[in-house]
Amino acid sequence: MPSDPLLDKLKFDANGLVPIIVQDHANGEVLMMAFMNREAIEKTIATGKVHTYSRSRGRLALKGETSGHFQLVKEVRTDCDRDVVLFKVEQIVAACHEGYRSCFFRKYEKGASQWRTIAEKAFDPDKVYTK
Amino acid sequence: MPSDPLLDKLKFDANGLVPIIVQDHANGEVLMMAFMNREAIEKTIATGKVHTYSRSRGRLALKGETSGHFQLVKEVRTDCDRDVVLFKVEQIVAACHEGYRSCFFRKYEKGASQWRTIAEKAFDPDKVYTK
Repeated sequence: MPSDPLLDKLKFDANGLVPIIVQDHANGEVLMMAFMNREAIEKTIATGKVHTYSRSRGRLALKGETSGHFQLVKEVRTDCDRDVVLFKVEQIVAACHEGYRSCFFRKYEKGASQWRTIAEKAFDPDKVYTK
Repeated sequence: MPSDPLLDKLKFDANGLVPIIVQDHANGEVLMMAFMNREAIEKTIATGKVHTYSRSRGRLALKGETSGHFQLVKEVRTDCDRDVVLFKVEQIVAACHEGYRSCFFRKYEKGASQWRTIAEKAFDPDKVYTK
């Protein structure tokens, strides 16, 4: 695969990573935020499925590999500084490993003692992530 | 101001920062991504206007301080890991210092030699950012 000149223009940080945002292309919901290295971006574009770079595991991870809850890429954007990438996707079932469609299911309420969960689960993680 | 227990639950990185996403509350457009320290989050919540932490300048920055293009906070969310914060805002004029409503005005096109600008400018930066 020849080097992609558009990826040459991205600004990766000292660890070779860029923050990425995944957004539902249909309703605009922000689904998750993660990191990618250049290889993860190349693989995401080549396969049409979001691959992140897992900092804890130190390797690429196909989003949905275990659950089948893939993120199918519809559009790729970058920002003015070219140091963040936005993926608009078709989300299969749900993005969050806790069962919610979006990872951003907790809402701030002034004076509350806890962040309030404002979404219903789209699936049961205990049934999807079995050994 | 007493300490806010909800902010105690956020996970800041080794530099005391969390990535934040700013989204238009009306149409769901992702406007920008930035970083905040705890003080920036407290000030954002207290004033209702987004304050970021500028890593290059090493201090808080009121978004829109020069331009008047403030981001008025409508809702605050955090994700499953509580290490990213999402702000849904009313955006005055535009978020991007280059004049676009959203910082994500560049689109990836396979085989192109440049990221394609797909938005019209909402204001002229040369007129807004004068000395």
